[in-house]
This record gives sequence, C-alpha cells and structure tokens, in this order.
Amino acid sequence: MASKNLILNYKNKFGFSDKFIAKTGKHLLPYIQKLKKILKEKDNQRPESFLNLVESQILIEIKRLAYQKIKEAKILILIGIGGSSLGTQAIYETLRGEFNFGKEKKFPQTIFLDKSNVAYLNDVLNFLKQQTKSNREILIVLISKSGTTLESLINFNVLWQFLKRRGTNFKNNVVVITERNSLLWQTAEKENFTLLEIPKAVSGRYSVFSSVGLFPLAALKINIQKLIEGAKTMRNKCLEENVKDNPALILAAFLFWSQQKGKTIIDNFFFEPNLEILGKWLRQLLAESLGKNGRGLTPTVSLGTADLHSVFQLSLAGPRNKSTIFVFVAQPPRPRLSIKPLPEFKKLISSFQGKDVFEIIEAVYQSVKNVYAKKKLPFIEIILPEISEDSLGQFLMLQMMATIFLAKLWKINAFNQPAVELYKSLARKILAGKVKKFNND
Amino acid sequence: MASKNLILNYKNKFGFSDKFIAKTGKHLLPYIQKLKKILKEKDNQRPESFLNLVESQILIEIKRLAYQKIKEAKILILIGIGGSSLGTQAIYETLRGEFNFGKEKKFPQTIFLDKSNVAYLNDVLNFLKQQTKSNREILIVLISKSGTTLESLINFNVLWQFLKRRGTNFKNNVVVITERNSLLWQTAEKENFTLLEIPKAVSGRYSVFSSVGLFPLAALKINIQKLIEGAKTMRNKCLEENVKDNPALILAAFLFWSQQKGKTIIDNFFFEPNLEILGKWLRQLLAESLGKNGRGLTPTVSLGTADLHSVFQLSLAGPRNKSTIFVFVAQPPRPRLSIKPLPEFKKLISSFQGKDVFEIIEAVYQSVKNVYAKKKLPFIEIILPEISEDSLGQFLMLQMMATIFLAKLWKINAFNQPAVELYKSLARKILAGKVKKFNND
Repeated sequence: MASKNLILNYKNKFGFSDKFIAKTGKHLLPYIQKLKKILKEKDNQRPESFLNLVESQILIEIKRLAYQKIKEAKILILIGIGGSSLGTQAIYETLRGEFNFGKEKKFPQTIFLDKSNVAYLNDVLNFLKQQTKSNREILIVLISKSGTTLESLINFNVLWQFLKRRGTNFKNNVVVITERNSLLWQTAEKENFTLLEIPKAVSGRYSVFSSVGLFPLAALKINIQKLIEGAKTMRNKCLEENVKDNPALILAAFLFWSQQKGKTIIDNFFFEPNLEILGKWLRQLLAESLGKNGRGLTPTVSLGTADLHSVFQLSLAGPRNKSTIFVFVAQPPRPRLSIKPLPEFKKLISSFQGKDVFEIIEAVYQSVKNVYAKKKLPFIEIILPEISEDSLGQFLMLQMMATIFLAKLWKINAFNQPAVELYKSLARKILAGKVKKFNND
Repeated sequence: MASKNLILNYKNKFGFSDKFIAKTGKHLLPYIQKLKKILKEKDNQRPESFLNLVESQILIEIKRLAYQKIKEAKILILIGIGGSSLGTQAIYETLRGEFNFGKEKKFPQTIFLDKSNVAYLNDVLNFLKQQTKSNREILIVLISKSGTTLESLINFNVLWQFLKRRGTNFKNNVVVITERNSLLWQTAEKENFTLLEIPKAVSGRYSVFSSVGLFPLAALKINIQKLIEGAKTMRNKCLEENVKDNPALILAAFLFWSQQKGKTIIDNFFFEPNLEILGKWLRQLLAESLGKNGRGLTPTVSLGTADLHSVFQLSLAGPRNKSTIFVFVAQPPRPRLSIKPLPEFKKLISSFQGKDVFEIIEAVYQSVKNVYAKKKLPFIEIILPEISEDSLGQFLMLQMMATIFLAKLWKINAFNQPAVELYKSLARKILAGKVKKFNND
C-alpha cells in the first residue's frame, strides 16, 4: 500500500535558494552513489548499513519472539540509555500519547529505565511489589551495544536482586540485546538469557530499526511492519539523485546554509505536544552526530502552542542565531471537538465560538509561520500526514539521512562520539579512589 | 526554623573573576536599594513587587479555601498556560516524582491542561467519564492573568460543556484566578465562581508565589508555608549589598559575563531527572524575560546522566558557544540502594560492585565537572540541599532575582513580552477569515 507522504516545505525568500540546494546536491552526489552501492551489495560492514535494516527480513522472527515473551508479562521494563532507548520511547510515546491515566490496562505497562536515579528506582521496585505476584509477570529487556553501559548495568543489577529475592524461575524473563561477543553477550549466553544482536557496524543512535527498537515495540503491540515500510519509502526517496525530490538533501542543505549564516541553534518546533519525545530522540541524533571538530548545531525542542508563551519572545526579539524546523501533523484527530456557544462566556470566546479546536490551533500555526516570514526568521516545514507508524518511520529515516548528509558536507564522522568516553573512564577512576573529587577552588 | 541552604559555587579560572563580580555588584547596587525600598514601603505598584508576595499574609486563607475545595474532589484540573501553570507544575512534579504508576491514589489526581490538543482533550474527557460519577468529584482551576488566553478559554469551554451535560450542580467546582476586573473576572463574578486575584503589577512568570501557584499547590497537599519560607530566605540573601554573599548577583554576573564572551547558550544541566520540569519553568523565565532588543541567552535543559549520552559530545567538541549551570541535589534519597555482588555478572560490574547507586552517580557528576574544567568550558554550580518545598522556594526565587538583575545590567524590561502578542492577534484575524493562510511560495 502506498504511504501517505510526509511533506517537506521550504521558503526561498531568506536566501536559502534552489540554487544553493542544487549546489549542495552536487557535493553530495558521490556520497549518495556510495550509499546506493552499500544497499545494492548488502554491505553490512559500514556504519551507513543502518539503511539496510529496513529490508525487514527479521521482522517475522522478531514479532514471534516478542509476542511469546510478552504473553504472560503484564509489565515490560526496558533498560537502556541514549540510542538504546530513545528511538523506542519516541515511537511508543508518540503513538500512545502522553496522557497515561487509566490507559495502562490496554497495553502492557511500560517502564523505560533510562536513568540511574535512586528515587526512581525505588519507585519502580515498589510498583513491581504492588502490581506483580510473580516474576513471570515481568519482562526485562536489557539493551546496551557495548555491553558495558554503566547506568544500564546498575539498573539491571538492582532489578535482578529483586527478581532473585522473589523466586528462582526468572531467566526466561530477560531478553538481552547487545553486540555479538561483547562481554554482556558472553555472560547472557552462559546464563541462557534470550539474546538478540545489534549489528556491529550500526551505532546506537541509528539503530532504531534493528532489534533495539523493533523487539520492544513489537512486544508493545506497535505495528513494526508499517514502521519499517514508512522508513523504507523515505530511504528510497532520500537516495534520489534529483535534488528537488530528495527531502533529506534539502533538509541537510538548509542546516548547512544555516550554519554558514551564523544560525548556530536549530529549534525543532513541534506543533503537536505528543511529539515532544521525538524531539529528545532528534536532539541526541543531531548533537552527538554533528558535535565534532568545533562544528555543530545546538538542537532545541519547542512545543506549540505552549512555548509560544515562552521561547517565542526570544526567537522573535532576541539574537538572530536560530533556524527553525516546524513539524505539524496534517490529520486532525478524531473525534473532533468544537467550541460550543456558552451564553455565560459569550463575550470571552466570541472570536472562536463554533470553531473546531483543531482549526483554531491550525490558525495559530499559520499565524506563527506568518510572523516568522515577516520577521525573516529562516524556517523549513515538515508536515506529517498523521500520527502513525508509517509517518514516524518516514520522519525518523528522514532525520537520520539528513544528519549523515550534513556530516558529509562538514567532513566529519557522523557515527562516533569520542567525547562521551571521557567522563566514563574518569568516573570509574573516581569510584576506584584513584582520582580525587572535583574541587571548586 | 533555619533553612538548609542552597549553595552556589563558581570557579574563577575561566576568566569569570571575583573582580568581575565586584564590578557588576557596583552597577547593581542602586537597583538593589530600589528593591529594598519596594519591600519596605510595601509598594505593590511595580512589577518587582513579586518580592513582596512571600510575606505570606494570605497563606492561611488560601490554605483554608484550597482544603475546602479539594475535600470532595478526586481530580484537580489546572487550566493555564505559560506563567499560569509552569511554576505550579515545576514544584508539584519535582516533589512528587515523575513515576506516576500506582501513585495516583495517594494524592488528588492532577491534570495540567496546558495545551489545546484535540487528542489530549479527548483523553481527558474519557478519563473523567470513567473515573468520576458526579461533577462534585472534579475541581477546575482556571488561571489566566489577562483573562483572554486563547488556549485556556478553549479548554475551559470544552470541560464546561462536559460538566453541563452531566448535571446542574457544578458552579462550586470552579475556581477562577485572574486579574481584578478583567473580562474573565467580571464573568466569573456574575456566574458566582470562586475568585482569586493575581496582583496586577506581577507578570505571569513571576507569579508562582501568588495565588496562581499557592492555591493549586495547597489543594495538592504541598506545604506552601515551607515553600514561601525558602523563597523569603533567598530573597533576603539576594538583597545583600555585600556581593560575595548575594547568590543572585553572582549568577547574574556569570550570565552577563557569558554573553560578553560570546556564550549565547545557557545549558541548565540538572543532575537529577525529577528536576526536568523545573527546567521548563526556567526556560520560560529566561527566554521571555531576556529575549529583547536583540539581547538574550538561549536556555537549554540537559539531564544527567541521560544527556551525557547525547548533548555531552556537542558541549565538549562542538562550538564553544555555551555556559553551563549544573544543578545537583546533595541529599541522597532514602532508602539507599547498593550494587550487590552477582556471581553471574561479576566481570561486568567489577568496578562498582558494592557501591551505593547515589555514590556512583555522584562520581559521574564529579567526573563531568572535571572534564568541563579541564576543557575550560565555563560553568557554575547550584547545590540544592534536598528535594523539598524549602529548597524549591529558594531555587525559584534565586532564578527570578538573577533574571531581573541581568535585565537591569542589559537595560531591558524583564517583565513584558511584546512579541508574544504578535501571533495572538494574527491568529484571531485568520480565524475571522480576514487574513489568508500562509503560503510557502
């Protein structure tokens, strides 16, 4: 079935022109051809091989395993941080909505253990005590690419102690997702945990379409088939050599142009509150991929309409150091809601009485774009056709491809994160008493 | 009772020196003296009169009303956006924690209607249908300073229709908080809703210690007495003319210095995930107060340890356009958790086996500060003694006072937001069909 297409709109009145896009396209052409070759040859040795993931051979197997594992479990606990968790969270929470009162019964309850926080961990343990009678009701998914992630090992340890205290039959309740032959892989193999592999060449923040995202999402009843289909449709578009039809190329060119014009901040302005968590995923993707060699754009996340009462003032009247990417969802949610006449409040709501709530919000969105254009604040617009697996698959793939295109234009490596290792090794030394704590004087 | 003190640490090796602070202090002295006068004379005509709010004469009255109103209600719905909601959310969610599974029974359930989103509104209506049998179980608090806030009027309209369909006895369930004599005030008076006043001179983002924050917080069983005490302690410190003892002055000087050094981004890096919502409040305070006349600092919010796997790379290896404010909580939460020896996982956790989880996170925090210092990335450190009403009162007051100090140094008005009005009037015109929608070409 054909996808409902994500649409990328840009305005060329700010100096970001079709000519600039064409020139950028020429620079990127060799890279696009290289990507096509990786695809054609099914070359899984390169970091760009995340593009091959959406060929979906493993879908059926993953779904079967996920359904089997979740069958008895009432609660899924995903232990992972950064790239091991954010993509899954972004898709799950965007689709399910943020309002979780009373919804828990419909799906397996889900806990994302993406931080090692004592208060939070205590809350989780208390909740498990109250809500589950046996370990069989809990499914733990432990995800760490390297297998050495400090926070995730802490969280797993604490949960494992809990399971151990309560009973013996629990090895079946743990699924470990890691790189083949990591120390964690070897341990999990010895312990007979269920194991899934993260392809070695694919780095964390590009791994959402591998088992990292697909297994937990399938267990949570997300349609991973549609997600993959959306991603694949977008991937193919973004390999298009005709620049005008290549949305990732246009988006990368816009970011490239922004940085040249001194716009060091990219505001990802979502006009749909449910997309906030998608912003977190995007923030990681952009910051970690592109913050290298003095290069980088600081991603910020704004939410319409709430942030019109906050960051809007800064964007309009503050320093002109930002470009904006607006994200809007075209399809109004059902059922519709309208503003009914209320005799008591007639004067207060006169200008929008009888209007549909979605229509009002759309008018606000239109007015915001108008103000930005008038003030010559550069922006680009992404329209999601709806909130669905297919749409999200398209959006995530678009962003990943635009990111690697921009890295190529900047001649930096989009796939490593050398700085992140710095604090980790130091923290280990401090714990071992080898380095004294920080002193302010 | 004496407060446990919030501590502000700074390092003077980046060029941010005691001399710079002293010089800034001299510039600010006349303003500090003016503020003292406002306090002494109980002058409530000026926007700075938010400093007078913590004299707390109205506390007992507000508490009594709040307890009475919440008595029968199981659910409190706060309708408000920006300054009418963020401060209350920040305090409530920081104290209650973000993990809300199974906690709802302990407190009145709380819904913050701070957006007009069709899907979210539908979820809220369904929830009310399921969870309440009569209107008496619902308390609506509608907060709008001007009384004309589009989103809040939409939300109130939709809820009002719901209450109306279900019964007649519901006027007692609405508390309206607005400026005296606004159109909303007049309407509420006519309809016999309970009314509370927002002091005219105090603008939204400085109003958390007025009835705007205190009434809903009291209803939600937050100790507003302690909150106010913390705020008052901090206010008095921040009026100290001896610069070394004035934390708001030091913080303002740091931000002033940062902007002079081309650090256009302020990363508020909270090493405690529960403080994320506090970051949202802070983002609004800084962006809306300081984004004027081409001035402004873009506030970002990072969370430890999660964002060490994302924005840390950008901060370290990207453009040097940031200053950082670390926020850490000194008091480890109870009960403590430690990493028990696990024979199966011995190798994986060898470096931190037997350690306390809080101790590990603290070591990570120490290592991060060390790396920042080594890389000469400027930062300042705020240590909250604990997560409590008193601590939060101190933190919020510190930030508000640092903000008005910085505005004074920049010679801008910290209390208005002229740009925000732009989109509002345009949206009304679009809805009335007077302006055509935005066109990308």
